[in-house]
Amino acid sequence: MAELADACASGAYGRKAVEVQILSGAPKTIYMIKKTYLRRREFKKTGTSPVYNEARTFPVSSETVKFVALGGLEEIGRNMMFFEYNDEIVIIDAGLQFPEETTPGIDFIIPNTAYLETKKKNIRALIITHGHLDHIGAIPYIMEKIGNPLIYTTVLNKAMINRRQEDFPNVSKLEFEIVKDGESRQISKNFKAEFFGVAHTIPDSIGVILDTPAGKMVYPGDFRVDYDNEGNPKNMDTWEKIGKQKIHTLLLDSTGADKEGFSISERVVEAEIEKIFKKAGGRIIVATFASLLDRLSEIIKIAEKYDRKIFISGFSMKNNIQIAQNLGFMKIKKETIAPLDEINKYRDDKIVLLCTGAQGEANASLMRIINGDHKQVQIKKGDTVILSSSVVPGNERSVQILLDDIARQGGIIYHSRMVDIHSSGHAPQEELKAVMKAIKPRFYTPVHGYYFMRWRNAQLAQEALKLKPEETPIVDNGQVLLLSKNSAIISKESVPVFYVMVDGLGVGDVGEIVLRDRRVLAQEGMVVIIATLDRHTGRFLKNPDIISRGFIYLKENKELVEEIRKKIKSMVVRIPYQQIDADYIKSMIRDQIGEFLYRKTKRRPMVLPVVIEV
Amino acid sequence: MAELADACASGAYGRKAVEVQILSGAPKTIYMIKKTYLRRREFKKTGTSPVYNEARTFPVSSETVKFVALGGLEEIGRNMMFFEYNDEIVIIDAGLQFPEETTPGIDFIIPNTAYLETKKKNIRALIITHGHLDHIGAIPYIMEKIGNPLIYTTVLNKAMINRRQEDFPNVSKLEFEIVKDGESRQISKNFKAEFFGVAHTIPDSIGVILDTPAGKMVYPGDFRVDYDNEGNPKNMDTWEKIGKQKIHTLLLDSTGADKEGFSISERVVEAEIEKIFKKAGGRIIVATFASLLDRLSEIIKIAEKYDRKIFISGFSMKNNIQIAQNLGFMKIKKETIAPLDEINKYRDDKIVLLCTGAQGEANASLMRIINGDHKQVQIKKGDTVILSSSVVPGNERSVQILLDDIARQGGIIYHSRMVDIHSSGHAPQEELKAVMKAIKPRFYTPVHGYYFMRWRNAQLAQEALKLKPEETPIVDNGQVLLLSKNSAIISKESVPVFYVMVDGLGVGDVGEIVLRDRRVLAQEGMVVIIATLDRHTGRFLKNPDIISRGFIYLKENKELVEEIRKKIKSMVVRIPYQQIDADYIKSMIRDQIGEFLYRKTKRRPMVLPVVIEV
Repeated sequence: MAELADACASGAYGRKAVEVQILSGAPKTIYMIKKTYLRRREFKKTGTSPVYNEARTFPVSSETVKFVALGGLEEIGRNMMFFEYNDEIVIIDAGLQFPEETTPGIDFIIPNTAYLETKKKNIRALIITHGHLDHIGAIPYIMEKIGNPLIYTTVLNKAMINRRQEDFPNVSKLEFEIVKDGESRQISKNFKAEFFGVAHTIPDSIGVILDTPAGKMVYPGDFRVDYDNEGNPKNMDTWEKIGKQKIHTLLLDSTGADKEGFSISERVVEAEIEKIFKKAGGRIIVATFASLLDRLSEIIKIAEKYDRKIFISGFSMKNNIQIAQNLGFMKIKKETIAPLDEINKYRDDKIVLLCTGAQGEANASLMRIINGDHKQVQIKKGDTVILSSSVVPGNERSVQILLDDIARQGGIIYHSRMVDIHSSGHAPQEELKAVMKAIKPRFYTPVHGYYFMRWRNAQLAQEALKLKPEETPIVDNGQVLLLSKNSAIISKESVPVFYVMVDGLGVGDVGEIVLRDRRVLAQEGMVVIIATLDRHTGRFLKNPDIISRGFIYLKENKELVEEIRKKIKSMVVRIPYQQIDADYIKSMIRDQIGEFLYRKTKRRPMVLPVVIEV
Repeated sequence: MAELADACASGAYGRKAVEVQILSGAPKTIYMIKKTYLRRREFKKTGTSPVYNEARTFPVSSETVKFVALGGLEEIGRNMMFFEYNDEIVIIDAGLQFPEETTPGIDFIIPNTAYLETKKKNIRALIITHGHLDHIGAIPYIMEKIGNPLIYTTVLNKAMINRRQEDFPNVSKLEFEIVKDGESRQISKNFKAEFFGVAHTIPDSIGVILDTPAGKMVYPGDFRVDYDNEGNPKNMDTWEKIGKQKIHTLLLDSTGADKEGFSISERVVEAEIEKIFKKAGGRIIVATFASLLDRLSEIIKIAEKYDRKIFISGFSMKNNIQIAQNLGFMKIKKETIAPLDEINKYRDDKIVLLCTGAQGEANASLMRIINGDHKQVQIKKGDTVILSSSVVPGNERSVQILLDDIARQGGIIYHSRMVDIHSSGHAPQEELKAVMKAIKPRFYTPVHGYYFMRWRNAQLAQEALKLKPEETPIVDNGQVLLLSKNSAIISKESVPVFYVMVDGLGVGDVGEIVLRDRRVLAQEGMVVIIATLDRHTGRFLKNPDIISRGFIYLKENKELVEEIRKKIKSMVVRIPYQQIDADYIKSMIRDQIGEFLYRKTKRRPMVLPVVIEV
């Protein structure tokens, strides 16, 4: 998921509590979704999961370190967590989450930093594990609020973070401490960090061993095991070396925990892509995530081998490749990359076009190519189109449209459902177990992903490490895990983690009420009824005005409009004029017209009455 | 997809052309989606696919039969097609489609019968292949409009159709001609139908060999190959027998055409479910589609073997099982099924609860159980929950919530991503090829499914049958395929196939304008601005009224509201009163306030100005 297309927005702050209010016009399905949502929130607060309760029986000792995740544990994305000991706090990652079905119109969701803001002078470090948006995307929004702490990260991560800062010209400059695989830093009196390189889908990713008063905590960030040409796992010694230190708690990514087996080796992906290159007679168009730098690197190498030029379409992809190339993470021959506006000067079999939009994103390059909106490129017969990415849940329909339209235009399609031309960056079950066994921690806490995935992850740890359920606590966002020498206990206290939503310039100003209205409006639309009354007589000065959107096309339903008008007038006429009261009339219109419309149409549009007294 | 949960609604008719109009306040993404959608529509109309054009070079002879699909060829669902020769029309199936992301609030979409309505006296038959909603769901809405033709179908299909008719008390009674595997009927002078049994996921499914003046056309409906205990395909002789007749055109389902290999045998599914039954200590809850009658039958048999009672939760599932049992398609011991309200009288290890809701549907039994809203059942520790269905694209998030909540409540989960406890009813590649080879038709036309699937299906036919692309025409909804003795040509003419949407009581009254408004409202909400003016002086009689929903929570943004008011007043004051004109003021408010709000918030709510002159 870290591999989602880039999104950006510019600064401005604000925050608001989530409020809940039930609206009369809401259709039934909305209620149900809402209810589920609330109930899930309740779970989070009361923590009725059995593991949670059992774990409470542990003793708390004086050297207790607190661990809290502010996001990422009940979703994919919005990863941010911190460790706290007395007056020292170390944060790891600050990512964003892409909007869900229940948050229409939202740009994205960022972690809630309310707790950290009250303690900003205690914050000693923000450690960033890798340069994907679900781990760095919230930085421009939160850094000033948490006191702009020093960022410990690698050189590529720094460049990715700074690239993004350019979109936010008004925020303070960030301070960095560059670290490398194998290096250590004494962050504060009580926290020391040792960094180690991990394999993911972007170079220069690091994990951290955080030495705390309670013991050593290991968090590798997103990772998988990579394989050599013979299919043997690479760099297992890194994990074994960590295992030689006595590790208190290991925190591993659960994103792949419900997938059996091992990753598809990136070597296999390379080989499959090369096969397609060998076969292709015409142009090759490769669509993938702009942040999948390792994959892009491989494809460029294959293009060089087959003597094809690389053209890049997509702002974020171009930027990322440039950054990686400048820092030496991509070795590309000088003449390989050619400017996009020269693409039509080359022979078809000399062309590889790299572009974004493998998810069918509306404004990405591939969609523009397919729609005929791209300046230089259209699909033509004989093009080979490689979609080298998984389908992010929720995008199935957009990807289907992609496939349909490419096929209609004569393109030859390869996508990851057909051949192994994509491999996830998240370790599946057998790799998780291998890493657990190498590290042999005393406690294990699953991070990243929905509850079911974290629950599977905890089960894997119980199997692989022979741990008891209370030794693999499953914490939710905001829950405080108390880590002491011989225990890992979920506390009763918690910190606020409700969604902070970014929508346009607004950060946190879209709350549950606004979202609920959007959901209702999307289902059945709305009807505004304006009654203009004489304030002295309480009688109508003119016919009620009716506007409607998303309900029924009024121009073709004049009869219904007339019926509504008649009904309102007869309602108001029946009220003695001494009792004319705007609120009373409004609630009467809302209820009676709402009911009337439902009877006539079996739909429940939002009815918005306005009474104008003149 | 045929296996989706039941939906129902009651009658009332009407139809409206799809209109397109661009709205000023629409955010960019909406435009893009819209554009893609329009472009796809264009394809449908102009048919620029290469196969299409090449096929046109064939000669048309006098015995030409027309074939048209009114739905199902550019979507999953809404299956309906017909053959026409002179003044005789034979229709096959009349299904519905479930709403898409781009049709918010819609109940479902039915085929457009405009063409058939003009020729209703020519319609000689409606043949129904099986009892799933994507093949029978439109019947209550369209039968009267097309003259209530005689329905040729099997006894179970008839019962399923009639069950559904009960929800529509005001429609005419249907007339049936019951047919069986192996039987033939002379439908009209020029059309004769021979029926053959096919394996799908519901019993009593039939395919049809339609003998026409152009030759014999074979359409099996939805099908797959079933296997015996040794893994050998069953009933291949049915296909081979058909192959001995000289077949003109074979029309096969493309839903599985992009899946490699063979179906998971239903025997494997049975064995896997039985393994889970063996292991389960507590209650077993099985969630699946109410229409997956074969699966339900198997589960009931296993329950009997393990001496567990069956309890059924879900109206549609109960109905379907009862119908199948009454007609002898399910053999259930008398004492096996017990009333749901007695479930708590039984020991946990004696209980199997069958329920709907494996897709996380908001109002289905399983969701109510998880939410604590179910009268008799809640998930408890030790429950085994089997989700025996695939995840329908678009439902990934709801299914994730299911999994999370079941896990949180202590249930042990098995779903089809983890073990082989579901098999699709649609033949994948190798089975499609096997049937093609057995039948050896002269021409081949892929039906059902998105373009990419049909394109893959046509490719398979070219491979398996050594046909040329022009012998496997890929037709879109509404395109007319001209079938003559020695040709199958796509004509330039076409029939209307635009969406007819059912929303509450309305059929066809929700058009593109209403949907577009719903999509815009969902993204950024709306602002209604009411300016009350003195008609003589053109001056404000009161402060402008502002209502907003889904944009910003106004109660917390009083400043913004005041700014809007001030802006409007200063706008209007600047107009000389002779020029006061409601339309002019409205367009000024829409443009200037829209722009102002965008500058302030980077959001584009729908701005709805109302001018009241008193």
